Amino acid sequence: MFTFKIEPRFSETDALGHINNTSLPVWFEEARTDLFRIFNPSLKRETWNLILKKYEVEMLNQIVHGKPVTIETGIQRIGGSSFVVHQKASQNGLDVAIGESLMVYFDYKTLSPIQIPGEIKQRLLEHTLEPEA
Amino acid sequence: MFTFKIEPRFSETDALGHINNTSLPVWFEEARTDLFRIFNPSLKRETWNLILKKYEVEMLNQIVHGKPVTIETGIQRIGGSSFVVHQKASQNGLDVAIGESLMVYFDYKTLSPIQIPGEIKQRLLEHTLEPEA
Amino acid sequence: MFTFKIEPRFSETDALGHINNTSLPVWFEEARTDLFRIFNPSLKRETWNLILKKYEVEMLNQIVHGKPVTIETGIQRIGGSSFVVHQKASQNGLDVAIGESLMVYFDYKTLSPIQIPGEIKQRLLEHTLEPEA
Amino acid sequence: MFTFKIEPRFSETDALGHINNTSLPVWFEEARTDLFRIFNPSLKRETWNLILKKYEVEMLNQIVHGKPVTIETGIQRIGGSSFVVHQKASQNGLDVAIGESLMVYFDYKTLSPIQIPGEIKQRLLEHTLEPEA
Repeated sequence: MFTFKIEPRFSETDALGHINNTSLPVWFEEARTDLFRIFNPSLKRETWNLILKKYEVEMLNQIVHGKPVTIETGIQRIGGSSFVVHQKASQNGLDVAIGESLMVYFDYKTLSPIQIPGEIKQRLLEHTLEPEA
Repeated sequence: MFTFKIEPRFSETDALGHINNTSLPVWFEEARTDLFRIFNPSLKRETWNLILKKYEVEMLNQIVHGKPVTIETGIQRIGGSSFVVHQKASQNGLDVAIGESLMVYFDYKTLSPIQIPGEIKQRLLEHTLEPEA
Repeated sequence: MFTFKIEPRFSETDALGHINNTSLPVWFEEARTDLFRIFNPSLKRETWNLILKKYEVEMLNQIVHGKPVTIETGIQRIGGSSFVVHQKASQNGLDVAIGESLMVYFDYKTLSPIQIPGEIKQRLLEHTLEPEA
Repeated sequence: MFTFKIEPRFSETDALGHINNTSLPVWFEEARTDLFRIFNPSLKRETWNLILKKYEVEMLNQIVHGKPVTIETGIQRIGGSSFVVHQKASQNGLDVAIGESLMVYFDYKTLSPIQIPGEIKQRLLEHTLEPEA
Protein backbone atom coordinates (compact mmCIF):
# COMPACT_ATOMS: atom_id res chain seq x y z
CA MET A 1 0.00 0.00 0.00
CA PHE A 2 1.08 3.56 -0.71
CA THR A 3 0.59 6.28 1.89
CA PHE A 4 0.11 9.88 0.82
CA LYS A 5 -0.43 12.99 2.92
CA ILE A 6 -2.42 15.97 1.69
CA GLU A 7 -3.12 19.36 3.27
CA PRO A 8 -6.70 20.42 2.45
CA ARG A 9 -6.59 23.84 0.79
CA PHE A 10 -8.70 26.76 1.96
CA SER A 11 -10.06 27.15 -1.57
CA GLU A 12 -11.35 23.57 -1.30
CA THR A 13 -13.74 24.44 1.52
CA ASP A 14 -17.27 25.39 0.51
CA ALA A 15 -20.04 27.53 1.98
CA LEU A 16 -21.08 24.66 4.25
CA GLY A 17 -17.76 25.11 6.05
CA HIS A 18 -16.24 21.75 5.17
CA ILE A 19 -14.19 20.45 2.24
CA ASN A 20 -16.33 20.17 -0.88
CA ASN A 21 -16.84 16.61 -2.14
CA THR A 22 -15.33 17.48 -5.53
CA SER A 23 -11.82 17.62 -4.04
CA LEU A 24 -11.78 13.91 -3.32
CA PRO A 25 -11.14 12.72 -6.91
CA VAL A 26 -8.33 15.31 -7.12
CA TRP A 27 -6.71 14.02 -3.92
CA PHE A 28 -7.19 10.39 -4.85
CA GLU A 29 -5.58 11.07 -8.23
CA GLU A 30 -2.57 12.64 -6.48
CA ALA A 31 -2.37 9.69 -4.10
CA ARG A 32 -2.11 7.36 -7.12
CA THR A 33 1.09 9.08 -8.31
CA ASP A 34 3.42 6.31 -7.08
CA LEU A 35 1.21 3.85 -8.90
CA PHE A 36 1.46 5.93 -12.08
CA ARG A 37 5.26 5.78 -11.76
CA ILE A 38 5.13 1.99 -12.04
CA PHE A 39 3.62 2.43 -15.51
CA ASN A 40 5.41 5.60 -16.54
CA PRO A 41 8.43 6.37 -14.32
CA SER A 42 9.00 9.88 -15.74
CA LEU A 43 5.30 10.82 -15.43
CA LYS A 44 5.79 12.59 -18.78
CA ARG A 45 2.74 13.03 -20.94
CA GLU A 46 4.52 11.76 -24.07
CA THR A 47 4.74 8.32 -22.47
CA TRP A 48 1.49 8.43 -20.46
CA ASN A 49 -0.26 5.06 -20.74
CA LEU A 50 -3.18 4.94 -18.32
CA ILE A 51 -6.76 6.08 -18.55
CA LEU A 52 -9.32 6.36 -15.78
CA LYS A 53 -12.47 4.54 -16.84
CA LYS A 54 -14.63 4.79 -13.75
CA TYR A 55 -14.45 5.95 -10.16
CA GLU A 56 -16.57 5.99 -7.06
CA VAL A 57 -16.28 8.17 -3.97
CA GLU A 58 -18.05 7.52 -0.69
CA MET A 59 -18.09 10.24 1.95
CA LEU A 60 -17.93 8.83 5.48
CA ASN A 61 -17.39 11.96 7.57
CA GLN A 62 -17.08 15.68 7.01
CA ILE A 63 -13.54 16.79 6.16
CA VAL A 64 -12.24 20.01 7.68
CA HIS A 65 -9.62 22.54 6.69
CA GLY A 66 -6.50 22.96 8.83
CA LYS A 67 -5.68 19.30 9.49
CA PRO A 68 -3.77 16.91 7.18
CA VAL A 69 -5.52 14.03 5.43
CA THR A 70 -3.80 10.67 4.96
CA ILE A 71 -4.66 8.56 1.93
CA GLU A 72 -3.85 4.86 1.69
CA THR A 73 -3.82 3.35 -1.77
CA GLY A 74 -3.81 -0.34 -2.69
CA ILE A 75 -4.62 -2.60 -5.61
CA GLN A 76 -7.87 -4.48 -5.28
CA ARG A 77 -8.04 -6.48 -8.48
CA ILE A 78 -5.90 -6.94 -11.60
CA GLY A 79 -7.36 -7.93 -14.97
CA GLY A 80 -5.87 -8.31 -18.43
CA SER A 81 -5.63 -4.67 -19.34
CA SER A 82 -7.20 -3.04 -16.31
CA PHE A 83 -7.01 -2.91 -12.51
CA VAL A 84 -9.04 -1.57 -9.62
CA VAL A 85 -7.51 0.79 -7.07
CA HIS A 86 -8.95 1.06 -3.57
CA GLN A 87 -8.23 4.18 -1.51
CA LYS A 88 -9.10 5.34 1.97
CA ALA A 89 -8.78 8.88 3.29
CA SER A 90 -8.58 9.55 7.01
CA GLN A 91 -8.26 12.72 9.05
CA ASN A 92 -7.58 13.06 12.72
CA GLY A 93 -7.79 9.27 13.16
CA LEU A 94 -11.22 9.07 11.55
CA ASP A 95 -12.00 7.50 8.16
CA VAL A 96 -13.48 10.28 6.03
CA ALA A 97 -13.80 8.87 2.51
CA ILE A 98 -13.37 5.76 0.39
CA GLY A 99 -12.45 5.79 -3.28
CA GLU A 100 -12.42 3.09 -5.89
CA SER A 101 -11.18 3.54 -9.43
CA LEU A 102 -10.93 1.42 -12.52
CA MET A 103 -7.76 2.20 -14.47
CA VAL A 104 -7.01 0.90 -17.95
CA TYR A 105 -3.54 0.41 -19.46
CA PHE A 106 -4.00 2.41 -22.63
CA ASP A 107 -2.30 3.28 -25.88
CA TYR A 108 -3.02 6.96 -26.60
CA LYS A 109 -1.92 6.57 -30.24
CA THR A 110 -4.37 3.83 -31.17
CA LEU A 111 -6.79 4.92 -28.43
CA SER A 112 -7.24 1.33 -27.27
CA PRO A 113 -6.54 -0.77 -24.16
CA ILE A 114 -3.45 -2.93 -24.09
CA GLN A 115 -2.42 -5.98 -22.02
CA ILE A 116 -0.55 -5.17 -18.82
CA PRO A 117 2.95 -6.74 -19.15
CA GLY A 118 3.84 -9.43 -16.60
CA GLU A 119 6.61 -7.31 -15.11
CA ILE A 120 4.21 -4.49 -14.26
CA LYS A 121 1.64 -6.97 -12.91
CA GLN A 122 4.35 -8.23 -10.60
CA ARG A 123 4.97 -4.74 -9.31
CA LEU A 124 1.24 -4.16 -8.82
CA LEU A 125 0.92 -7.39 -6.85
CA GLU A 126 3.32 -5.95 -4.26
CA HIS A 127 0.66 -3.38 -3.49
CA THR A 128 -2.45 -5.51 -3.31
CA LEU A 129 -4.73 -5.15 -0.33
CA GLU A 130 -4.87 -7.77 2.41
CA PRO A 131 -7.85 -10.12 1.90
CA GLU A 132 -9.52 -8.82 5.09
CA ALA A 133 -9.25 -5.18 4.03
CA MET B 1 -35.39 15.60 -16.46
CA PHE B 2 -33.33 18.76 -16.10
CA THR B 3 -31.02 19.88 -18.89
CA PHE B 4 -27.91 21.91 -18.13
CA LYS B 5 -25.27 23.30 -20.48
CA ILE B 6 -21.68 23.79 -19.45
CA GLU B 7 -18.70 25.26 -21.29
CA PRO B 8 -15.54 23.30 -20.42
CA ARG B 9 -12.93 25.70 -19.09
CA PHE B 10 -9.39 25.84 -20.43
CA SER B 11 -8.06 25.37 -16.89
CA GLU B 12 -10.00 22.08 -16.80
CA THR B 13 -7.90 20.56 -19.57
CA ASP B 14 -4.86 18.55 -18.50
CA ALA B 15 -1.50 17.67 -20.03
CA LEU B 16 -3.12 14.84 -22.00
CA GLY B 17 -4.99 17.50 -23.97
CA HIS B 18 -8.50 16.59 -22.85
CA ILE B 19 -10.70 17.60 -19.91
CA ASN B 20 -9.38 16.06 -16.69
CA ASN B 21 -11.73 13.52 -15.09
CA THR B 22 -11.90 15.53 -11.85
CA SER B 23 -14.11 18.17 -13.51
CA LEU B 24 -17.01 15.76 -13.89
CA PRO B 25 -18.18 15.82 -10.24
CA VAL B 26 -18.01 19.64 -10.38
CA TRP B 27 -20.16 19.75 -13.52
CA PHE B 28 -22.60 17.16 -12.25
CA GLU B 29 -22.96 19.14 -9.00
CA GLU B 30 -23.76 22.28 -11.02
CA ALA B 31 -26.26 20.34 -13.12
CA ARG B 32 -28.09 19.31 -9.93
CA THR B 33 -28.77 22.97 -9.03
CA ASP B 34 -32.44 22.87 -10.10
CA LEU B 35 -32.82 19.77 -7.98
CA PHE B 36 -31.26 21.58 -5.01
CA ARG B 37 -33.83 24.36 -5.48
CA ILE B 38 -36.65 21.86 -4.84
CA PHE B 39 -35.18 21.30 -1.36
CA ASN B 40 -33.85 24.79 -0.71
CA PRO B 41 -35.30 27.39 -3.10
CA SER B 42 -32.94 30.20 -2.02
CA LEU B 43 -29.85 27.92 -2.25
CA LYS B 44 -28.66 29.76 0.88
CA ARG B 45 -26.27 27.89 3.13
CA GLU B 46 -28.27 28.72 6.28
CA THR B 47 -31.11 26.55 4.99
CA TRP B 48 -29.01 23.97 3.12
CA ASN B 49 -30.44 20.48 3.77
CA LEU B 50 -28.76 17.96 1.50
CA ILE B 51 -25.57 15.99 1.77
CA LEU B 52 -23.84 13.94 -0.91
CA LYS B 53 -23.15 10.46 0.44
CA LYS B 54 -21.70 8.71 -2.57
CA TYR B 55 -21.08 9.24 -6.24
CA GLU B 56 -19.81 7.38 -9.25
CA VAL B 57 -18.47 8.71 -12.53
CA GLU B 58 -17.96 6.65 -15.66
CA MET B 59 -15.98 8.12 -18.52
CA LEU B 60 -17.30 7.03 -21.93
CA ASN B 61 -15.34 9.23 -24.30
CA GLN B 62 -12.68 11.91 -24.11
CA ILE B 63 -14.06 15.41 -23.51
CA VAL B 64 -12.51 18.32 -25.36
CA HIS B 65 -12.20 22.03 -24.72
CA GLY B 66 -13.99 24.49 -27.02
CA LYS B 67 -17.35 22.72 -27.37
CA PRO B 68 -20.31 22.85 -24.94
CA VAL B 69 -21.31 19.84 -22.87
CA THR B 70 -24.97 19.04 -22.18
CA ILE B 71 -25.90 17.32 -18.94
CA GLU B 72 -29.24 15.60 -18.39
CA THR B 73 -30.27 14.97 -14.81
CA GLY B 74 -33.06 12.71 -13.56
CA ILE B 75 -34.15 10.91 -10.41
CA GLN B 76 -33.48 7.19 -10.45
CA ARG B 77 -34.77 6.04 -7.06
CA ILE B 78 -36.38 7.68 -4.00
CA GLY B 79 -36.05 6.24 -0.49
CA GLY B 80 -37.15 7.45 2.93
CA SER B 81 -34.48 10.06 3.48
CA SER B 82 -32.36 9.60 0.38
CA PHE B 83 -32.55 9.49 -3.40
CA VAL B 84 -30.34 8.54 -6.34
CA VAL B 85 -29.63 10.98 -9.16
CA HIS B 86 -28.65 9.75 -12.60
CA GLN B 87 -26.80 12.09 -14.96
CA LYS B 88 -25.50 11.87 -18.50
CA ALA B 89 -23.06 14.25 -20.13
CA SER B 90 -22.82 14.51 -23.90
CA GLN B 91 -20.70 16.59 -26.24
CA ASN B 92 -21.02 16.98 -29.94
CA GLY B 93 -23.81 14.37 -30.05
CA LEU B 94 -21.68 11.77 -28.27
CA ASP B 95 -22.24 10.47 -24.73
CA VAL B 96 -19.08 11.30 -22.80
CA ALA B 97 -19.79 10.48 -19.15
CA ILE B 98 -22.36 9.00 -16.78
CA GLY B 99 -22.79 10.07 -13.17
CA GLU B 100 -24.76 8.61 -10.32
CA SER B 101 -25.05 10.17 -6.90
CA LEU B 102 -26.71 9.27 -3.64
CA MET B 103 -28.08 12.37 -1.90
CA VAL B 104 -29.40 12.42 1.65
CA TYR B 105 -31.93 14.89 3.05
CA PHE B 106 -29.97 16.11 6.04
CA ASP B 107 -30.27 18.26 9.16
CA TYR B 108 -26.97 20.12 9.58
CA LYS B 109 -27.81 21.02 13.19
CA THR B 110 -28.29 17.48 14.45
CA LEU B 111 -26.00 16.08 11.71
CA SER B 112 -28.52 13.35 10.90
CA PRO B 113 -30.70 12.27 7.96
CA ILE B 114 -34.36 13.25 7.96
CA GLN B 115 -37.43 11.90 6.14
CA ILE B 116 -38.16 13.56 2.80
CA PRO B 117 -41.58 15.28 3.11
CA GLY B 118 -44.34 14.02 0.79
CA GLU B 119 -44.57 17.35 -0.98
CA ILE B 120 -40.90 17.23 -1.98
CA LYS B 121 -41.19 13.57 -3.00
CA GLN B 122 -44.02 14.62 -5.29
CA ARG B 123 -41.78 17.21 -6.94
CA LEU B 124 -38.96 14.67 -7.32
CA LEU B 125 -41.33 12.20 -8.97
CA GLU B 126 -41.86 14.72 -11.78
CA HIS B 127 -38.22 14.26 -12.67
CA THR B 128 -37.85 10.49 -12.53
CA LEU B 129 -36.24 8.72 -15.44
CA GLU B 130 -38.26 6.73 -17.93
CA PRO B 131 -38.15 2.98 -17.13
CA GLU B 132 -36.25 2.24 -20.34
CA ALA B 133 -33.61 4.86 -19.60
CA MET C 1 -15.70 44.80 -25.78
CA PHE C 2 -16.64 41.20 -25.24
CA THR C 3 -19.36 40.24 -22.79
CA PHE C 4 -19.31 36.86 -21.06
CA LYS C 5 -21.72 35.38 -18.52
CA ILE C 6 -20.64 32.92 -15.88
CA GLU C 7 -22.62 30.99 -13.25
CA PRO C 8 -20.57 30.75 -10.03
CA ARG C 9 -20.24 27.09 -9.04
CA PHE C 10 -21.07 25.81 -5.59
CA SER C 11 -17.60 24.26 -5.35
CA GLU C 12 -16.18 27.76 -5.86
CA THR C 13 -17.66 29.05 -2.60
CA ASP C 14 -15.43 28.81 0.48
CA ALA C 15 -15.99 28.50 4.22
CA LEU C 16 -16.56 32.26 4.46
CA GLY C 17 -19.74 31.74 2.45
CA HIS C 18 -18.73 33.70 -0.62
CA ILE C 19 -16.87 32.84 -3.83
CA ASN C 20 -13.20 32.25 -3.13
CA ASN C 21 -10.86 34.81 -4.73
CA THR C 22 -8.99 32.09 -6.64
CA SER C 23 -11.93 31.62 -9.04
CA LEU C 24 -11.46 35.05 -10.57
CA PRO C 25 -8.42 34.20 -12.74
CA VAL C 26 -10.33 31.12 -13.96
CA TRP C 27 -13.37 33.19 -14.91
CA PHE C 28 -11.30 35.96 -16.49
CA GLU C 29 -9.43 33.34 -18.55
CA GLU C 30 -12.77 31.96 -19.78
CA ALA C 31 -13.98 35.46 -20.59
CA ARG C 32 -10.91 35.96 -22.81
CA THR C 33 -11.92 33.04 -25.05
CA ASP C 34 -13.23 35.25 -27.88
CA LEU C 35 -9.95 37.11 -27.72
CA PHE C 36 -8.03 33.84 -27.96
CA ARG C 37 -10.03 32.99 -31.08
CA ILE C 38 -8.62 36.08 -32.82
CA PHE C 39 -5.15 34.56 -32.42
CA ASN C 40 -6.06 30.88 -32.75
CA PRO C 41 -9.55 30.38 -34.24
CA SER C 42 -9.67 26.62 -33.52
CA LEU C 43 -8.46 27.07 -29.91
CA LYS C 44 -6.43 23.90 -30.52
CA ARG C 45 -3.33 23.42 -28.46
CA GLU C 46 -1.18 22.54 -31.48
CA THR C 47 -1.61 26.08 -32.77
CA TRP C 48 -1.79 27.88 -29.41
CA ASN C 49 0.26 31.08 -29.57
CA LEU C 50 -0.35 33.17 -26.46
CA ILE C 51 1.18 33.13 -23.03
CA LEU C 52 -0.01 34.94 -19.91
CA LYS C 53 2.89 36.89 -18.44
CA LYS C 54 1.25 38.73 -15.57
CA TYR C 55 -2.16 39.36 -14.10
CA GLU C 56 -3.76 41.38 -11.36
CA VAL C 57 -7.12 40.88 -9.66
CA GLU C 58 -8.83 43.46 -7.48
CA MET C 59 -11.80 42.41 -5.38
CA LEU C 60 -14.40 45.17 -5.08
CA ASN C 61 -17.31 43.36 -3.45
CA GLN C 62 -18.10 39.89 -2.16
CA ILE C 63 -19.37 37.53 -4.86
CA VAL C 64 -22.20 35.16 -3.99
CA HIS C 65 -23.35 31.80 -5.30
CA GLY C 66 -26.72 31.53 -7.05
CA LYS C 67 -26.57 34.65 -9.23
CA PRO C 68 -24.84 35.03 -12.62
CA VAL C 69 -21.72 37.16 -13.04
CA THR C 70 -21.14 39.27 -16.16
CA ILE C 71 -17.60 39.89 -17.34
CA GLU C 72 -16.69 42.64 -19.80
CA THR C 73 -13.38 42.29 -21.57
CA GLY C 74 -11.54 44.96 -23.56
CA ILE C 75 -8.06 45.73 -24.83
CA GLN C 76 -6.26 48.41 -22.89
CA ARG C 77 -2.91 48.67 -24.63
CA ILE C 78 -1.18 47.01 -27.60
CA GLY C 79 2.61 46.70 -27.86
CA GLY C 80 4.92 44.98 -30.35
CA SER C 81 4.46 41.43 -29.14
CA SER C 82 2.19 41.94 -26.15
CA PHE C 83 -1.09 43.54 -25.11
CA VAL C 84 -2.96 44.34 -21.90
CA VAL C 85 -6.50 43.09 -21.32
CA HIS C 86 -8.80 44.89 -18.92
CA GLN C 87 -11.78 43.00 -17.44
CA LYS C 88 -14.61 43.90 -15.12
CA ALA C 89 -16.89 41.43 -13.35
CA SER C 90 -20.28 42.53 -12.06
CA GLN C 91 -23.06 40.71 -10.24
CA ASN C 92 -26.52 41.93 -9.52
CA GLY C 93 -25.70 45.37 -10.96
CA LEU C 94 -22.68 45.80 -8.68
CA ASP C 95 -19.03 45.77 -9.81
CA VAL C 96 -17.38 42.91 -7.94
CA ALA C 97 -13.88 42.56 -9.41
CA ILE C 98 -11.40 44.06 -11.84
CA GLY C 99 -8.79 42.07 -13.73
CA GLU C 100 -5.83 43.12 -15.80
CA SER C 101 -3.61 40.75 -17.70
CA LEU C 102 -0.52 41.03 -19.84
CA MET C 103 -0.62 38.56 -22.73
CA VAL C 104 2.32 37.82 -25.01
CA TYR C 105 2.10 36.52 -28.59
CA PHE C 106 4.36 33.51 -28.24
CA ASP C 107 6.03 30.78 -30.25
CA TYR C 108 5.88 27.58 -28.18
CA LYS C 109 8.51 25.91 -30.39
CA THR C 110 11.23 28.51 -29.89
CA LEU C 111 9.76 29.57 -26.52
CA SER C 112 10.08 33.22 -27.47
CA PRO C 113 7.77 36.22 -28.05
CA ILE C 114 6.89 37.15 -31.62
CA GLN C 115 5.58 40.34 -33.25
CA ILE C 116 1.80 40.61 -33.44
CA PRO C 117 0.88 40.75 -37.19
CA GLY C 118 -0.86 43.92 -38.39
CA GLU C 119 -4.02 42.03 -39.28
CA ILE C 120 -4.43 40.75 -35.71
CA LYS C 121 -3.62 44.20 -34.29
CA GLN C 122 -6.43 45.54 -36.43
CA ARG C 123 -8.85 43.03 -34.95
CA LEU C 124 -7.68 43.86 -31.41
CA LEU C 125 -8.22 47.58 -32.03
CA GLU C 126 -11.92 46.85 -32.57
CA HIS C 127 -12.08 45.83 -28.93
CA THR C 128 -10.13 48.63 -27.26
CA LEU C 129 -11.64 50.36 -24.28
CA GLU C 130 -13.05 53.84 -24.54
CA PRO C 131 -10.57 56.45 -23.24
CA GLU C 132 -12.85 57.31 -20.30
CA ALA C 133 -13.17 53.70 -19.19
CA MET D 1 10.03 34.51 5.83
CA PHE D 2 7.88 31.44 5.67
CA THR D 3 8.80 28.53 3.43
CA PHE D 4 6.12 26.25 2.01
CA LYS D 5 6.43 23.23 -0.28
CA ILE D 6 3.73 22.25 -2.74
CA GLU D 7 3.43 19.29 -5.09
CA PRO D 8 1.80 20.41 -8.37
CA ARG D 9 -1.25 18.24 -9.04
CA PHE D 10 -1.84 16.46 -12.32
CA SER D 11 -5.27 18.11 -12.55
CA GLU D 12 -3.48 21.48 -12.44
CA THR D 13 -1.69 20.86 -15.72
CA ASP D 14 -3.42 22.14 -18.85
CA ALA D 15 -3.46 21.19 -22.52
CA LEU D 16 -0.23 23.14 -23.08
CA GLY D 17 1.49 20.55 -20.91
CA HIS D 18 2.49 22.85 -18.05
CA ILE D 19 0.77 24.00 -14.85
CA ASN D 20 -2.08 26.38 -15.67
CA ASN D 21 -1.56 29.93 -14.40
CA THR D 22 -4.76 29.80 -12.34
CA SER D 23 -3.14 27.47 -9.79
CA LEU D 24 -0.75 30.15 -8.60
CA PRO D 25 -3.27 32.13 -6.49
CA VAL D 26 -4.34 28.82 -4.91
CA TRP D 27 -0.76 27.89 -4.04
CA PHE D 28 0.10 31.39 -2.81
CA GLU D 29 -3.02 31.34 -0.60
CA GLU D 30 -1.88 28.01 0.90
CA ALA D 31 1.62 29.39 1.44
CA ARG D 32 0.12 32.26 3.47
CA THR D 33 -1.38 29.83 6.00
CA ASP D 34 1.26 30.48 8.68
CA LEU D 35 0.58 34.17 8.22
CA PHE D 36 -3.16 33.57 8.68
CA ARG D 37 -2.38 31.77 11.95
CA ILE D 38 -0.86 34.98 13.35
CA PHE D 39 -4.28 36.62 12.93
CA ASN D 40 -6.47 33.61 13.64
CA PRO D 41 -4.55 30.76 15.30
CA SER D 42 -7.39 28.21 14.95
CA LEU D 43 -7.98 29.08 11.28
CA LYS D 44 -11.69 28.66 12.08
CA ARG D 45 -14.13 30.54 9.93
CA GLU D 46 -16.06 31.92 12.93
CA THR D 47 -13.01 33.96 13.90
CA TRP D 48 -11.66 34.65 10.41
CA ASN D 49 -10.52 38.27 10.18
CA LEU D 50 -8.68 38.86 6.93
CA ILE D 51 -9.83 39.70 3.44
CA LEU D 52 -7.81 39.67 0.24
CA LYS D 53 -8.24 43.01 -1.52
CA LYS D 54 -5.89 42.66 -4.46
CA TYR D 55 -3.28 40.33 -5.86
CA GLU D 56 -0.82 40.14 -8.69
CA VAL D 57 0.87 37.12 -10.21
CA GLU D 58 3.86 37.26 -12.54
CA MET D 59 4.88 34.12 -14.40
CA LEU D 60 8.66 33.86 -14.85
CA ASN D 61 9.07 30.34 -16.18
CA GLN D 62 6.89 27.40 -17.12
CA ILE D 63 5.99 25.18 -14.17
CA VAL D 64 5.96 21.43 -14.70
CA HIS D 65 4.19 18.52 -13.05
CA GLY D 66 6.22 15.93 -11.13
CA LYS D 67 8.62 18.23 -9.26
CA PRO D 68 7.91 20.10 -5.99
CA VAL D 69 7.56 23.89 -5.90
CA THR D 70 8.94 25.95 -3.00
CA ILE D 71 7.17 29.16 -2.03
CA GLU D 72 8.81 31.82 0.13
CA THR D 73 6.48 34.30 1.77
CA GLY D 74 7.41 37.58 3.45
CA ILE D 75 5.82 40.86 4.50
CA GLN D 76 6.64 43.76 2.23
CA ARG D 77 4.77 46.66 3.81
CA ILE D 78 2.50 47.16 6.83
CA GLY D 79 -0.16 49.90 6.96
CA GLY D 80 -2.85 50.79 9.52
CA SER D 81 -5.32 48.05 8.66
CA SER D 82 -3.60 46.38 5.73
CA PHE D 83 -0.32 44.80 4.67
CA VAL D 84 1.35 43.61 1.49
CA VAL D 85 2.64 40.06 1.17
CA HIS D 86 5.41 39.21 -1.29
CA GLN D 87 5.82 35.62 -2.46
CA LYS D 88 8.22 33.80 -4.73
CA ALA D 89 7.73 30.34 -6.18
CA SER D 90 10.69 28.32 -7.42
CA GLN D 91 11.03 24.87 -8.94
CA ASN D 92 14.18 22.92 -9.63
CA GLY D 93 16.31 25.89 -8.52
CA LEU D 94 14.61 28.26 -10.96
CA ASP D 95 12.27 31.14 -10.00
CA VAL D 96 8.95 30.41 -11.66
CA ALA D 97 6.49 33.00 -10.33
CA ILE D 98 6.17 36.07 -8.13
CA GLY D 99 3.03 36.96 -6.19
CA GLU D 100 2.02 40.08 -4.35
CA SER D 101 -1.15 40.44 -2.34
CA LEU D 102 -2.83 43.17 -0.36
CA MET D 103 -4.53 41.77 2.74
CA VAL D 104 -6.89 43.76 4.96
CA TYR D 105 -7.58 43.08 8.64
CA PHE D 106 -11.35 42.86 8.47
CA ASP D 107 -14.43 42.59 10.66
CA TYR D 108 -16.87 40.23 8.88
CA LYS D 109 -19.75 41.39 11.12
CA THR D 110 -19.55 45.08 10.28
CA LEU D 111 -17.91 44.32 6.91
CA SER D 112 -15.26 46.98 7.49
CA PRO D 113 -11.47 47.17 7.89
CA ILE D 114 -10.04 47.42 11.39
CA GLN D 115 -6.70 48.61 12.77
CA ILE D 116 -4.05 45.90 13.11
CA PRO D 117 -3.21 45.61 16.85
CA GLY D 118 0.39 46.41 17.87
CA GLU D 119 1.01 42.88 19.03
CA ILE D 120 0.15 41.43 15.63
CA LYS D 121 2.20 44.11 13.86
CA GLN D 122 5.12 43.02 15.98
CA ARG D 123 4.69 39.43 14.83
CA LEU D 124 4.42 40.54 11.20
CA LEU D 125 7.64 42.54 11.50
CA GLU D 126 9.48 39.30 12.25
CA HIS D 127 8.65 38.20 8.72
CA THR D 128 9.47 41.33 6.73
CA LEU D 129 11.66 41.00 3.70
CA GLU D 130 15.27 42.13 3.70
CA PRO D 131 15.64 45.58 2.06
CA GLU D 132 17.68 44.12 -0.80
CA ALA D 133 15.04 41.47 -1.56
